[in-house]
Amino acid sequence: MAVFVYKFGGTSVGTVERIKVVAEKIKKARDQGDHIVVVVSAMSGETNRLTGLAEEIQFHPNSREMDVLLSTGEQVTMALLSMALHELGCSACSYTGGQVKILTDNTHTKARIREIDDLKIKQDLEKGRVVVVAGFQGVDEYGNITTLGRGGSDTTAVALAAALKADECHIYTDVDGVYTTDPRVEPKARKLDKITFEEMLEMASLGSKVLQIRAVEFAGKYNVALRVLSSFKEGKGTLITYEESEMERALISGIAFNRDEAKLTIAGVPDLPGVASKILCPVADENIEIDMIIQNIADDATTDFTFTVHRNDYQKTKNILETVCSELNAKHVTGDDSIVKISIVGVGMRSHAGIASTMFKVLADEGINIRMISTSEIKISVVVDEKYLELAVRALHKAFGLDKEE
Amino acid sequence: MAVFVYKFGGTSVGTVERIKVVAEKIKKARDQGDHIVVVVSAMSGETNRLTGLAEEIQFHPNSREMDVLLSTGEQVTMALLSMALHELGCSACSYTGGQVKILTDNTHTKARIREIDDLKIKQDLEKGRVVVVAGFQGVDEYGNITTLGRGGSDTTAVALAAALKADECHIYTDVDGVYTTDPRVEPKARKLDKITFEEMLEMASLGSKVLQIRAVEFAGKYNVALRVLSSFKEGKGTLITYEESEMERALISGIAFNRDEAKLTIAGVPDLPGVASKILCPVADENIEIDMIIQNIADDATTDFTFTVHRNDYQKTKNILETVCSELNAKHVTGDDSIVKISIVGVGMRSHAGIASTMFKVLADEGINIRMISTSEIKISVVVDEKYLELAVRALHKAFGLDKEE
Repeated sequence: MAVFVYKFGGTSVGTVERIKVVAEKIKKARDQGDHIVVVVSAMSGETNRLTGLAEEIQFHPNSREMDVLLSTGEQVTMALLSMALHELGCSACSYTGGQVKILTDNTHTKARIREIDDLKIKQDLEKGRVVVVAGFQGVDEYGNITTLGRGGSDTTAVALAAALKADECHIYTDVDGVYTTDPRVEPKARKLDKITFEEMLEMASLGSKVLQIRAVEFAGKYNVALRVLSSFKEGKGTLITYEESEMERALISGIAFNRDEAKLTIAGVPDLPGVASKILCPVADENIEIDMIIQNIADDATTDFTFTVHRNDYQKTKNILETVCSELNAKHVTGDDSIVKISIVGVGMRSHAGIASTMFKVLADEGINIRMISTSEIKISVVVDEKYLELAVRALHKAFGLDKEE
Repeated sequence: MAVFVYKFGGTSVGTVERIKVVAEKIKKARDQGDHIVVVVSAMSGETNRLTGLAEEIQFHPNSREMDVLLSTGEQVTMALLSMALHELGCSACSYTGGQVKILTDNTHTKARIREIDDLKIKQDLEKGRVVVVAGFQGVDEYGNITTLGRGGSDTTAVALAAALKADECHIYTDVDGVYTTDPRVEPKARKLDKITFEEMLEMASLGSKVLQIRAVEFAGKYNVALRVLSSFKEGKGTLITYEESEMERALISGIAFNRDEAKLTIAGVPDLPGVASKILCPVADENIEIDMIIQNIADDATTDFTFTVHRNDYQKTKNILETVCSELNAKHVTGDDSIVKISIVGVGMRSHAGIASTMFKVLADEGINIRMISTSEIKISVVVDEKYLELAVRALHKAFGLDKEE
């Protein structure tokens, strides 16, 4: 018998009616003879309600108690889903993270899973029960309740699938799979049947936020076959798996983009060792995350240093740089907060030359000026003016053959 | 240093503002150097909300999952109260029943406490922390979440006080103590400074529902000094304790009454062994609780058999009796669902004769006809017509000197 781990997010279990629909879906799978372990999130809205209560009491709620509070959200869902399964005549049993137990470190509100005890779950599965587990939560070695941070239920599901050596881990969500790009920007975007873990990681971190990035990393590390599919529509979704050598893969799997970035340049910086850290450390000290970094080749004794940050941090970063600029005796600071980053992602690029030049030519043909370029093994990112987003995505989507059926 | 267990019910922690008030009260006690363990209920309304969700899914929700669901109510409160204490600069730590751990049997929705591990609590108290514990819940030996049934938070508090050998267990509620009778019926009703466990048990089971009866039994068994007091008003409340021999006690401590009863008589029953069980078993089989039972002395070969049930069960019981009546070849079934039971309660009655006759005379002087009488060591109950309730209670309150200050 095959073992599957199903994960349902907050929207999928947001009402009693939806919980009943989810129960039907699970029962159907169970009736086909599969062993099913279900991981659930809090009903949508519940986490915000609880956070609201906490914040009425403490401006920065105590993190240990915050975990105690938030973990009740999934506990409510798991009990209701188990009841819904019983109502359908399907034997089921629910467990909190602590009951399983899912052992984590003690970093409250963003704990990491260390170990999962699969004994109870296996015993229940053998008795023919569906096992419902609270996502997002665990316990530390002293029995304190911990939570895994936003989106942690995906991580719970993947970790359980790894521990149980499940055949597949299904992440049910409100989209029916991973697309070649955002269909709201390119209506010709196609759902992918398969994507590799590495491609998925690049897609996720670049803004196609279907899955929590930690869950994908985890799935890659422990070789868990992950499938993203819709809670509401029938369909096979997208399978996230290892690159298969025999498979004739497309060069490019998808096009990701990020509208939330801003770009800053400090020009005329003395080209000396340690200058990069002198610029970036004051920014990092303010907890501002830096994304792309580019340093142009210096042709006199100075260099231009450019990087991108989240658009919300633009003004703050600019102020920091003004100070740095005068300290380093640099020329001036410039910036632009109406840019976007567009990336093409694909493992195929490893074995094919000329992808970058194709990309640049496509953009040039459309008259789009590239402001920054950054590359990795399986992705190429460019920064362009915000107004070119749709034009660039659509042109690239077509040029790399993503409009066509696989 | 003294150890106190404080218990706050759902109304006392019903809003964020009230939780803050409770935190202030606890901090004040802590600042005086006492060790404080707090037991909390779910915020008022929360248990009903959760039960409502469950019942939308299952008509008779699975009892194991119901416990999983309901136990989240106290967990939310304990986290919020701990945060409120932190906000006041008072170190605090919260624990679920499972975390403590409070070991129970596995009778879901009405489990009984078997054992409490006090290690974590003692360690925390020694570190100067206030310990906040979820009331109403525990775990069975397999780690399944259990609940103690309605009012179970009182039981948790008393059991913790017993385990910790606490100096006193304070039950904070919306009344400021135990009264000689219901002040809504007799405005001269007085708050008692002290009452014995046995009197409290008789008062509680007779309708003066200040405390859960199991908690009082538990407190009596383990010699826990229990104090009932108001969450909202200052005051010393009522101490529930053992009878003190040196204390010159009043004859009667209080007058309890119950408006929810109905009375049924099956007349002309053959006076044979086993007849009582033939009458009562079919009633008990329908889960109808029987309160007072009276069998009149038979002066021919037949007897009249009378008992009381909850008024809601009146018609159902009458139907059962009609069947029994024809089976036993008895004369007829009569009944009355507009009666009340009034009881005088006091350990003083043990050592004083004539209490019953005083009671009957007081009622006779007011022209009140007594329909049934039942007595125990420390209480005398009578059934009278409903319309005489206020008159009877006030006359007895005065006659037994309860109007006067102690």
